[in-house]
Amino acid sequence: MDIIVLRPGATASELRYIVKKLKGRGFDATISKGTERTVIGVIGDTSNITEDEGNAFASMPGVEKVHRITQPFKLASRDFKSKDTIIRVGKNTIGGKKIHVIAGPCAVENLPTLLKIAQSVKKAGATFIRGGAFKPRTSPYSFQGLGEEGLKFLAEVREKTGMPVITEIMDPRDMDVILKYADIIQIGARNMQNFRLLREVGSHNKPIFLKRGLSATVKDLLMAAEYIMAQGNNKVILCERGIRTFETATRNTLDLSAVPVLKHLSHLPVIVDPSHGAGQWRLVSPMAKAAIAAGADGLMIEVHSNPEEALSDGEQSLKPEKFNVLMRELRVIAKAVGRKI
Amino acid sequence: MDIIVLRPGATASELRYIVKKLKGRGFDATISKGTERTVIGVIGDTSNITEDEGNAFASMPGVEKVHRITQPFKLASRDFKSKDTIIRVGKNTIGGKKIHVIAGPCAVENLPTLLKIAQSVKKAGATFIRGGAFKPRTSPYSFQGLGEEGLKFLAEVREKTGMPVITEIMDPRDMDVILKYADIIQIGARNMQNFRLLREVGSHNKPIFLKRGLSATVKDLLMAAEYIMAQGNNKVILCERGIRTFETATRNTLDLSAVPVLKHLSHLPVIVDPSHGAGQWRLVSPMAKAAIAAGADGLMIEVHSNPEEALSDGEQSLKPEKFNVLMRELRVIAKAVGRKI
Amino acid sequence: MDIIVLRPGATASELRYIVKKLKGRGFDATISKGTERTVIGVIGDTSNITEDEGNAFASMPGVEKVHRITQPFKLASRDFKSKDTIIRVGKNTIGGKKIHVIAGPCAVENLPTLLKIAQSVKKAGATFIRGGAFKPRTSPYSFQGLGEEGLKFLAEVREKTGMPVITEIMDPRDMDVILKYADIIQIGARNMQNFRLLREVGSHNKPIFLKRGLSATVKDLLMAAEYIMAQGNNKVILCERGIRTFETATRNTLDLSAVPVLKHLSHLPVIVDPSHGAGQWRLVSPMAKAAIAAGADGLMIEVHSNPEEALSDGEQSLKPEKFNVLMRELRVIAKAVGRKI
Amino acid sequence: MDIIVLRPGATASELRYIVKKLKGRGFDATISKGTERTVIGVIGDTSNITEDEGNAFASMPGVEKVHRITQPFKLASRDFKSKDTIIRVGKNTIGGKKIHVIAGPCAVENLPTLLKIAQSVKKAGATFIRGGAFKPRTSPYSFQGLGEEGLKFLAEVREKTGMPVITEIMDPRDMDVILKYADIIQIGARNMQNFRLLREVGSHNKPIFLKRGLSATVKDLLMAAEYIMAQGNNKVILCERGIRTFETATRNTLDLSAVPVLKHLSHLPVIVDPSHGAGQWRLVSPMAKAAIAAGADGLMIEVHSNPEEALSDGEQSLKPEKFNVLMRELRVIAKAVGRKI
Repeated sequence: MDIIVLRPGATASELRYIVKKLKGRGFDATISKGTERTVIGVIGDTSNITEDEGNAFASMPGVEKVHRITQPFKLASRDFKSKDTIIRVGKNTIGGKKIHVIAGPCAVENLPTLLKIAQSVKKAGATFIRGGAFKPRTSPYSFQGLGEEGLKFLAEVREKTGMPVITEIMDPRDMDVILKYADIIQIGARNMQNFRLLREVGSHNKPIFLKRGLSATVKDLLMAAEYIMAQGNNKVILCERGIRTFETATRNTLDLSAVPVLKHLSHLPVIVDPSHGAGQWRLVSPMAKAAIAAGADGLMIEVHSNPEEALSDGEQSLKPEKFNVLMRELRVIAKAVGRKI
Repeated sequence: MDIIVLRPGATASELRYIVKKLKGRGFDATISKGTERTVIGVIGDTSNITEDEGNAFASMPGVEKVHRITQPFKLASRDFKSKDTIIRVGKNTIGGKKIHVIAGPCAVENLPTLLKIAQSVKKAGATFIRGGAFKPRTSPYSFQGLGEEGLKFLAEVREKTGMPVITEIMDPRDMDVILKYADIIQIGARNMQNFRLLREVGSHNKPIFLKRGLSATVKDLLMAAEYIMAQGNNKVILCERGIRTFETATRNTLDLSAVPVLKHLSHLPVIVDPSHGAGQWRLVSPMAKAAIAAGADGLMIEVHSNPEEALSDGEQSLKPEKFNVLMRELRVIAKAVGRKI
Repeated sequence: MDIIVLRPGATASELRYIVKKLKGRGFDATISKGTERTVIGVIGDTSNITEDEGNAFASMPGVEKVHRITQPFKLASRDFKSKDTIIRVGKNTIGGKKIHVIAGPCAVENLPTLLKIAQSVKKAGATFIRGGAFKPRTSPYSFQGLGEEGLKFLAEVREKTGMPVITEIMDPRDMDVILKYADIIQIGARNMQNFRLLREVGSHNKPIFLKRGLSATVKDLLMAAEYIMAQGNNKVILCERGIRTFETATRNTLDLSAVPVLKHLSHLPVIVDPSHGAGQWRLVSPMAKAAIAAGADGLMIEVHSNPEEALSDGEQSLKPEKFNVLMRELRVIAKAVGRKI
Repeated sequence: MDIIVLRPGATASELRYIVKKLKGRGFDATISKGTERTVIGVIGDTSNITEDEGNAFASMPGVEKVHRITQPFKLASRDFKSKDTIIRVGKNTIGGKKIHVIAGPCAVENLPTLLKIAQSVKKAGATFIRGGAFKPRTSPYSFQGLGEEGLKFLAEVREKTGMPVITEIMDPRDMDVILKYADIIQIGARNMQNFRLLREVGSHNKPIFLKRGLSATVKDLLMAAEYIMAQGNNKVILCERGIRTFETATRNTLDLSAVPVLKHLSHLPVIVDPSHGAGQWRLVSPMAKAAIAAGADGLMIEVHSNPEEALSDGEQSLKPEKFNVLMRELRVIAKAVGRKI
C-alpha cells in the first residue's frame, strides 16, 4: 500500500484523475477526507510500482506528496527470504555461527611484506587475507596499486597460507583479471552506486563484499545489493564501514546500529570494517569488539607490519602484535554473544 | 602553537603587522615562505588565546585561515588531568571498574507505575532510577511532565528502593526544586549549549549528567563540560546518545566511536544511552552490549512496564522482562572486557 | 490520516487489538492486506493524535512502523492560515513587499562603537539595529556580553537613530530586562529547542526572531514556532542561519532552499542570516543576494567598524564600506524579484 | 608547511626520529615546546608530500595528529592559475560573462518528445540540451536509459536545433560511443569518485561536466577535478547539485555557498543544478535565481513536456511554460549581478 497526500484545495477533478490512473494500473483506492486535506490509500501489490511511476504520481496536479510503504528492495529483503543467507567460500561459511576476521594491508605493496603480514594474521586467527591491487585514492598523485602484479602476489600468499583472497574491483574492464585471482570481490564505498559495476559483478558467481557508501542509507545499501542479486548473484556480503557526518574527531562515523537494522531488514551477512570507520588505529580495537557485541557476522581489519612505511592508510593499520592481542579479546566477546571465532 | 596561513599575494606589510600584533601579545613567530603562500607559526602558550582573539586574527588583512592546534578545553582535558575522574554518588562510584546501569521510564507518570518499574529494574541489577519530571517535548501539545509532583514520586521511590535519582533540569528557575530531590542532575541533549543553564548547574556541587547535543561534536561536548567545570563543579558525567545524520532508519545515529575518543581526550566518565540513540526497542539490546564492549562506563536505558500506554517514548522503552534478559547478557560482556556490573 | 504498517507475520488478534484501540479513540480504520504485510489506514482527524499517542501505537505488538501524514504544527501552518503574516514593529512591517535588513555588531561592546556602526548601517539602508548583550559563546573563557549595560546602549542608539532594536534572550530570568529594552526578541540557534524559553517568550506580546537550530529540520523550526504561538504570541519571524553538515569549508551550510519550503508550509515571515550561515565575510555578499533571490523577506547581517578588534565573530563581519556596497547591490536584486528595500 | 602535533609525553628520541625523517625528505623543522605538548612545523615545499606520506607521519610513535596546510589540489587551484578558465564549446563559452542554461529531460525517452522539449527550451533561451541515455538509477527495476539509441536522438536534436549536447557517461566501456555523440560529457554525482572513469575522461579532449557527490566536500570535488586535469584535460566544469544532510523536506540540500567558495579556491567554471538539488519543481525557480545571484556561471535545469508521464524524475521537472517564465526572470537577475543570459 502506498499513500498519496493531496494539497489543501485539490479539486474533485484532480482527485478523480488520480483515482482513474490508479484503477488503470489495477489498484484500488480508499479516499479519506480530513478537515484540511484528502489522502488516497493505494490498495493492491504496490511493490510493482517502480520508483519512476511513484514519481510520476508525485507530479500530478493536486498532489502534495507520495509516501511509499513497500520497501523498494525484494531479493535482499527478509520479507522475501526469512532465513539467514550463509555464503560458502572454500571451506569457510560466512553468515553462520562462526565469526570471520578478514585481515591484511590496505594495499598490496610487495610479496615479502604481504606474506609476512598474512602469516602473522593467520596465526592470530584471521581466516581471509585482504589487500588492494587496484586502489581508489582521493589524490591522483597517491599510490594507485600494483594492478595484476598485486593480484598475483595475493594468489601466491593464498597458495602458501591457505587463506582465501578478498580484493577490490574498480573498473568493469578488470573483471576477467579479478575473477582469475579473487575468492571474494570487493565493491568499495565510493563505488557502491556505480550501477554498471554492480551489474557486472552480479552476472558472475563469485561472492561480493559490498561496502556501504559514505552517504548511503541502509536502504541505499540494500538497493545496491538488490542490483547485484537482480542479475542472479545472491552471494552478497554487506559491510558497514562508517558514514560521513559533521563529526571530525574520527575519519567517518561508524554506524554500528546499522548492524541490527540490516539484520532485521535483510537475510544477508553483515561485516564491519572498524579500520576505515574510525580511521585511527587507537580506535580499531574498541570498535571491533563493539561490532561483534552488536551482532556483526565478521570484521575486516587493516594490519600492516610497518604502518609508518605503508603506502596507504598507515595511520589506521594495526601492527601484528596489536592485532594478535585484539583477536584474543574478540574470542571472549564472541563467546559472550554466543558466537565463536 | 597556532598556525596562521596567509593569502597568496599577502604583502610584506600585512605580514609585519600580524607579527607585531603577536609579539604584542607575548608570542614569538616563525615565518615559513612556501612557493605559493606564507605560513606563520605562533610560538608560546597559545591556550590563552581566546576564541575571540583567534577570530580577530582571522579577519586581519592578508590572512586566509587560522588553525588552532591547542584544544580549547582545559579542565575537561586529559592533558590537564591524566587520571580517570571517579564520581561518588551515595555508595556508588561512576567511572571506575564497575559499570552502572541507570534505568527507568522516560517520564514520571504516577507513583505506582514508577515504583513498579523501579523495583523491577533494581532486581535486574540497575543501580540508579531515571525519570523525567520536566520533559523537553518537540510538540507543545505533548505531555510536558508532572513537575515537582514527579520529583516527589522519584524521592519516594528512592526511599523505598535505595536507588539514587537522576532527573533533568530544563530551566534555571527550577534549580532549587531540583537540588532538593535529585542525586544527579541531567542536562538534556537540546540544552547542551544552553550556556546559562550550564553555568547554573556548575555553581552547585551535585553531579551533572551531560548529554551530547544532536549536532554537537565531541569537542563541543567537552566545551560544554568545561562550562560547568569552570564554575567549580568537576563532577561531570558525559553521555553519548546519538547524533543527527542523514540516516533515517534509526531515530539518531549512535556514535559509539565517541566513547574511546572521549576517553582519550578527557578524564571524565562516559555513559551511553542506546534508547534515545537508536529510538526503537529492538535495537536497544545490541547497542547496549556494543557500548560496553566499546569501553563505556555505564548505560542509561528506558524501561516501562507498559510501553504502549507510556506518555512519552513508548516505542523505545524495554519491558522489564526484556531488560532483565539484557542485564544478564551485559554481565557477560562486562566480564569479557574486564569490568563488572 | 495516519498509516500503521504491521510486521510480516502479525497475527489476526494483534490486528484486532489495534483496530479496537483506534475505534476507542474515535477513528475508523481501513485494512489493506498486501502480499507481504498488512497496512492500516487511520481515518478521521488524526491531527489530534499527539506525538505520544503515535509512539504508543508504534510499540503495540505486531506493529513495524507508524507513518504520520498530518503535519504536527497547526498555528504555524499555511493550511491553518493561508495569508502571509505581516508583523508590525514601530512603523516597519516585516513580511510584506518591503525587504528589511537588520544590521549591527555581533556583540554590543561599548556605546561609541555601537553608535558609529548603527549610524553607518542606517545611512546604507538598514532598518533595524542588532547587537547581543547576552552572548551564547561556545567557550566559557570568551566574552559573554555586557548584560543590561549593553541593552541600555542599544536603547540609546535607538533613541539617536530611530532604528528598532533586536537582541537575544538566553535565560527566562532575563525576561523583564529584555522586555524593557528590545523591540524584537531573538531566540538563538542553540536555544531553538529550549522549550521553557519558548513558552516564556510566547506569553508576552513582543515579536520573536526565531533562529533555526544547527541540526533542526524545517519541521522542527515550525514546531518551535508552534510552541511560541501556542502561548498566544503569533508574532514569530523565522530565521535560516545555516545548518551543520559534513562540509567544513564554511562554518555552516546555509540552506537557502529552506526559504521557499518555509514559505510553502507556513505563513510566517522568513529572514536569512548569511553572516552565521557562511562564517566568512567574503561569502556574506553573494549569499545575501542569493537569499533575496530565493524569496527571503529580509536579512540579518553582522557589521563591525573594526572586525579585527571585535570581541566576537570578527571574521564574519562586514566593514561599513562593504556593507554599503552590498546594500546598493541588494536594491537591484530586490527590484528584480518584485520587492524593494 | 605542515604541522605535526606530538602526544603529551612524547619522548626526545621520538622527536629526534621524526625530525630525522623530515630532514631525509629534504624538509626543515621548527620545534616549539608548549606547556603541554610539542609541535613540529615542517618547512619547505610540502605540496610534494603525498597523502600517503602524510599518513605515514601520522602513524609514527609519539605523533597525535598531522595538520596539512597545503591544499592537495594543484592544477584545479587558483593559487596555480589565477585567471578564470573559459571553456569553448562550439560557439559558446562557459565561464565568462554570459550565463548558460542547460535544459532538457532527465532521460531521453523518444525522439519526438526530446525534440519538442529541445525546441521549447531553445526558444526560451537555453543554449545546451541535456538528456541521459545511460541513467544511474537507485533501483535495478527502474528505466535504465535507451543507450546508444538515446545518443542518436540527441545528435539528431543537435542537428535540428543547433544546441550542443551534454550527456552522462557511467562506464569507461562506453567512452567511444559517448565521444561520438556528446559535446560535453557529464560525470554524475554517484561517480564523482569513480577514479577510473575520471582518468578515462581525463585522457580525451572533451569538456567534462563534473557533478559534486552527495557527500563530497568542495575539496573532494576539486580533487576529482584534479584527477581529470592530471591526465591532461583542463576543460572541467564544476557542478553543485545538492549534498546529503539530515534535512528531509528537500531531496538534497543545495549548498549555494559552495559557489563563491569554489570560485575563490579554483579558476574553473561553476554551474548549479537546482532540479536535483531541491528535488521538487516548486523549488526550482527560487533556487535557480538564487544560484545566479550567488555568482554561478550557469544552470542545469530539468524540463519535461509531460512530467507525469516522464520515465524519470518527473516530480522535479519544469513544464516548458514554467521554464519560459523562469528564463525571463533569470535575465533580470543576471543583469542585476552584471551578467547576461
